[in-house]
Amino acid sequence: MNYLSEKAKSLTPYVAGIQPQEPGWIKLNTNENPYPPSPKVLEAINRADITRLRLYPDGNSNILCQHAGAHLNIPAEYVFAANSSDEVLAFAFGGFFSGKSVMMPDISYGFYPVWAEMYDAGTRIIPLRADYTIDPAAYRGAGGVMLANPNAPTGIALTLGEIEAIICQNPDGVVIVDEAYIDFAAVESAVNLVEKYENLLVVRTFSKSHSLAGLRVGYAVGQPHLIDGLQRMKNAFNSYPLDMLAQIAATAAISDTVYWDETRNRIIQTREQVAEKLCELGYPALPSQANFLFVKTQRAKALYDFLLEHKILVRYWNRPRLDQFLRVTMGTDEEMEAFLLCVKQF
Amino acid sequence: MNYLSEKAKSLTPYVAGIQPQEPGWIKLNTNENPYPPSPKVLEAINRADITRLRLYPDGNSNILCQHAGAHLNIPAEYVFAANSSDEVLAFAFGGFFSGKSVMMPDISYGFYPVWAEMYDAGTRIIPLRADYTIDPAAYRGAGGVMLANPNAPTGIALTLGEIEAIICQNPDGVVIVDEAYIDFAAVESAVNLVEKYENLLVVRTFSKSHSLAGLRVGYAVGQPHLIDGLQRMKNAFNSYPLDMLAQIAATAAISDTVYWDETRNRIIQTREQVAEKLCELGYPALPSQANFLFVKTQRAKALYDFLLEHKILVRYWNRPRLDQFLRVTMGTDEEMEAFLLCVKQF
Repeated sequence: MNYLSEKAKSLTPYVAGIQPQEPGWIKLNTNENPYPPSPKVLEAINRADITRLRLYPDGNSNILCQHAGAHLNIPAEYVFAANSSDEVLAFAFGGFFSGKSVMMPDISYGFYPVWAEMYDAGTRIIPLRADYTIDPAAYRGAGGVMLANPNAPTGIALTLGEIEAIICQNPDGVVIVDEAYIDFAAVESAVNLVEKYENLLVVRTFSKSHSLAGLRVGYAVGQPHLIDGLQRMKNAFNSYPLDMLAQIAATAAISDTVYWDETRNRIIQTREQVAEKLCELGYPALPSQANFLFVKTQRAKALYDFLLEHKILVRYWNRPRLDQFLRVTMGTDEEMEAFLLCVKQF
Repeated sequence: MNYLSEKAKSLTPYVAGIQPQEPGWIKLNTNENPYPPSPKVLEAINRADITRLRLYPDGNSNILCQHAGAHLNIPAEYVFAANSSDEVLAFAFGGFFSGKSVMMPDISYGFYPVWAEMYDAGTRIIPLRADYTIDPAAYRGAGGVMLANPNAPTGIALTLGEIEAIICQNPDGVVIVDEAYIDFAAVESAVNLVEKYENLLVVRTFSKSHSLAGLRVGYAVGQPHLIDGLQRMKNAFNSYPLDMLAQIAATAAISDTVYWDETRNRIIQTREQVAEKLCELGYPALPSQANFLFVKTQRAKALYDFLLEHKILVRYWNRPRLDQFLRVTMGTDEEMEAFLLCVKQF
């Protein structure tokens, strides 16, 4: 007997990159940060009063929201935190797109169409241009917009002016800008437009530039009426989405601006160097503003397999327009040397 | 402009008990455990390699599922873990009840009808009997069953035979038994029926008997085809629902059987003593098998206010059949003495 609901049967779940649990891999496949989290995170966890875990945590993560707000120069009531930016985005699809139609690029984060399905939102899929850039003028006329900036897996970013044009073209729908990779970009963050536009929601994560993928913390920035909408969805799902330790550790991470700046700049530098060397080897990458490179090669699958044999994991999609690329996360300089050596051998 | 989806507008979010952040309260309002988590939890957190937080956690919490399985004498593939039993239950409503009709008592955990609304499940609300017990024979004929055993806020439990009767009466629907409070009960757990019935899902939490409400860990036990259904829902929402530290700490807690047994037995003892003293004072409680008492009084609201003035928090619902009761969580013996003294003064 099949007990699954029609809803559950109809879903096409997201497939994340492989997470090998055994050591020995050079892991360049899920855009993790090669550097450990700020030492302040360890201090904060060691200082935490573990006996308080017997109590429910703050369901609104108020202290974390205050610190995230301070980091972005935005009032705390413009911030909503939850169990990863994936959860934040899921709440946003339910809260703002359910029953409407949402525009998104054909090539972007693979979870967006899954959340659309989950929350009964229609999708209007807009192809990237031939050069893999987003065409801002094409985003017009549906019930909302879902964009990643910089986009994934291309790494290409829109300017703040282009983002603003999309917001202005869609006054009746919410425009969500997923800034998972913005801290590695030269373009300005859309957070700077949040006080100006009531239909803009910016989503951020601690998984990339704060080196905390294992902690599952994400947040959204938007005007209070949008934050209320996310809170409604949260309180109809799970009242306390962030555990006490995650709140404490994320607060410590976002307060250590010096460490965050140092590590993200190191990753940007690595990216520029690796892009140059790959180009010399005949593997040009799209102009990335993220912590990964989308590397063009006619023999993507063969190179993927060759790297795998040498215990180097990268990401390959067997899909039109993607199957001549590999997405390579920036590791430490040592890891990238091993990667480049392997590419050279190939 | 209102950007909320019709879905978000139609929801009636759950309202949790107050969580005062300042000290000085005797907090008997959200069924937390008065004792700290096992010392093994602190050890495990101190031993954890915080640098690994840069990596995504195990999205299936395999080690935790193995230990939870060992604790219950059930194979690990019968276990699904997520960010609180609330999240597990939300996935279960989406996975098994969406588009169907689910039976539940009129008096039970207030989140059940919220998830039904969220996942487009109809509800068939079945009144408790006059003595506040569940009538097993009444649960028949809809698309599924949602029960808490022991029930909340009554504390009254069904026997395993009664649960089994409900499972057998509903071969075409999933029967979910929420055992948040089972470790304080004398009745047998429905986990013992999981290998026999393909339509039984038992949901558990670390928030009560493991003293980890602040960590947000829950799990479900059921046959692999039901676990697959929960995984489908999870992978269409958030691939990695449990952070690395939560997985490590929960594993440590569930492995320390001695501490768990000692603290839950202490709470059971407190409950029996407090029930007796309350009865002597003219406040009879329903026969509870949970870590709280549902205390009958004609002047429930007045007593609630009186306790509040004395910085003692309990739970009161201004709703028919509930408004002549207070739900009182069992605190430490010192806290309960203060509570009893206050009741005496009232």
